[in-house]
Amino acid sequence: MNSDPGMRRYGELRRMVDRRVMAAVGRSGPRTIQRSLRTVVTAGGKRIRPVLLLISCEAVGGRVRDALDAAAAVELMHNFTLVHDDIMDNAPTRHGRPTVHKHWGVSQGILAGDVLVGLAYECFLKTKALQIRRLTRLFTDCLLKVCEGQGVDLEFGARKRVRLPDYFRMIEKKTAAMFSTSTMIGGVIGSGTDGHVRALQKFGFHLGRAFQIQDDLLDVVAKERTFGKALGGDIMEGKKTFLLLKAGEKARGKAATLLARVADSGQGIRHGRGDDFVRKVTDLYRQLGAIDAARKQIASETEEATRALSRLPRNRGTAMLRWMSGMLLGRVA
Amino acid sequence: MNSDPGMRRYGELRRMVDRRVMAAVGRSGPRTIQRSLRTVVTAGGKRIRPVLLLISCEAVGGRVRDALDAAAAVELMHNFTLVHDDIMDNAPTRHGRPTVHKHWGVSQGILAGDVLVGLAYECFLKTKALQIRRLTRLFTDCLLKVCEGQGVDLEFGARKRVRLPDYFRMIEKKTAAMFSTSTMIGGVIGSGTDGHVRALQKFGFHLGRAFQIQDDLLDVVAKERTFGKALGGDIMEGKKTFLLLKAGEKARGKAATLLARVADSGQGIRHGRGDDFVRKVTDLYRQLGAIDAARKQIASETEEATRALSRLPRNRGTAMLRWMSGMLLGRVA
Repeated sequence: MNSDPGMRRYGELRRMVDRRVMAAVGRSGPRTIQRSLRTVVTAGGKRIRPVLLLISCEAVGGRVRDALDAAAAVELMHNFTLVHDDIMDNAPTRHGRPTVHKHWGVSQGILAGDVLVGLAYECFLKTKALQIRRLTRLFTDCLLKVCEGQGVDLEFGARKRVRLPDYFRMIEKKTAAMFSTSTMIGGVIGSGTDGHVRALQKFGFHLGRAFQIQDDLLDVVAKERTFGKALGGDIMEGKKTFLLLKAGEKARGKAATLLARVADSGQGIRHGRGDDFVRKVTDLYRQLGAIDAARKQIASETEEATRALSRLPRNRGTAMLRWMSGMLLGRVA
Repeated sequence: MNSDPGMRRYGELRRMVDRRVMAAVGRSGPRTIQRSLRTVVTAGGKRIRPVLLLISCEAVGGRVRDALDAAAAVELMHNFTLVHDDIMDNAPTRHGRPTVHKHWGVSQGILAGDVLVGLAYECFLKTKALQIRRLTRLFTDCLLKVCEGQGVDLEFGARKRVRLPDYFRMIEKKTAAMFSTSTMIGGVIGSGTDGHVRALQKFGFHLGRAFQIQDDLLDVVAKERTFGKALGGDIMEGKKTFLLLKAGEKARGKAATLLARVADSGQGIRHGRGDDFVRKVTDLYRQLGAIDAARKQIASETEEATRALSRLPRNRGTAMLRWMSGMLLGRVA
């Protein structure tokens, strides 16, 4: 694996982020909070967002080490969203291990998330940059967008009719915002020009959209799901994914009835839905062209993202951004 | 009431804060989030912390209007702690109205709290001050302390033996930190000298400690509880208050057994505890001198706070700080 120089560099950056994240949560504090935080940050996340931040800084000619605090901060913020979302989604496990609230209780889950936000800001504010106000505003705007995206996602659970444009608005806030904020912040720390920062924002935005649609797709087509997540989880939970909404656009008659059953009242795993149900729905997705449409959408988002990179200097950072997009979006067979 | 110039000024400042808080939460966003936020910010809080921030700014020669965004931010942050604490404490009402999570569900409560943190930072970062990094660090440090204080408070519920020094460490983080951060931030925005900012910090710290001990005391001695909170709630819930811990220092035999029953296993209202139980425990608090000790402690904290004010310029702001301390701590007959 390490013969790939991209993978080697990614591993290096990932370890740098890990060390900074560990240092940030190593702060003294109540034992119970420490315990929850360890559960979260040792869960083996891929550190995608902070690595994107670091190489975005590099892409505009900045130094990785100047962006490390901001990178760790973005990872802490991301972890906050995971902990709180897991409570709201009533998720029992993440990466095959019990979620914080399942392990230590809902109160500890809420508190761990809150502390992660505080630690994220604490870490972020160590960034030595002239534009600290602008940077902290970008960071805050991202926090608000992620919360709003989660709010819209919760509303989807109660709504009968959700359309693809609603879905895109949701994932732009819930997923793409953190990608594009990471790349932008990297660009600002690296003293990129306004044009470079805009290009990075566009890259992150499309990468984030593609990443979410791929996540929806992997739920039904992955040969094997790593991290202990069962195949078809989104179908079992009635989540309004790209596939469900795309298929819904074309379904008539019996097919429409089946999809309505998937979407039925949303939130929470529905009882009586087994592997058979998942297989039937997956087949329908395939027949109605939703799976092909997802692949096409991922390809076109990736193309948009890559196009944005052409407006950046040619250097090791930009090459890594291209490598990351391939690594992240090449997962679908 | 408005013949008291202090009360009149307080009302003025409170309305200024209210307007800024309303503007901050008026941001567009999912309907469900908007709904929760309205529930929170219209609940009729006293806006103590933001008003302290404003008059602290004035006390060092600064202008109230320069501190308004930071003041509203502190209030939003305070409201975040209320919403999340109410979930962790399983509190059904606040100010006589259903809490956010009781009204709209736990997920909406978590999300509303998260959004309030984001809005608090967004509002805070509008502050036009050269020292924005230092200020945002103070603000973040406060967020972390409040979370840690809440963590310690939750741990108290599971601990058999809590002593007064533990209690003080807890309230210094959970209550006093937000008071002293507010007064410090006001001082920094007003360009106070280091000495003035330290004096303001000390004032806020002791005022906050006194405020919390008074809160414990009001739970058992107030002639009538406004805001719809029942008398003796802390006793019913087995909370480790100043009174319980102070009485515990002196209790022997049967008295010690009764107090152990109060503290028993903490968290959540114990069944089978009625008015009789509250009356018996309150009488014991009185007999063991805990109520007198609380009054003495409040008086000495207030004295310390007032002493700190003597290191500040004599002006309208400092006079208002003195007035606020009298208004807040003069509530115990």
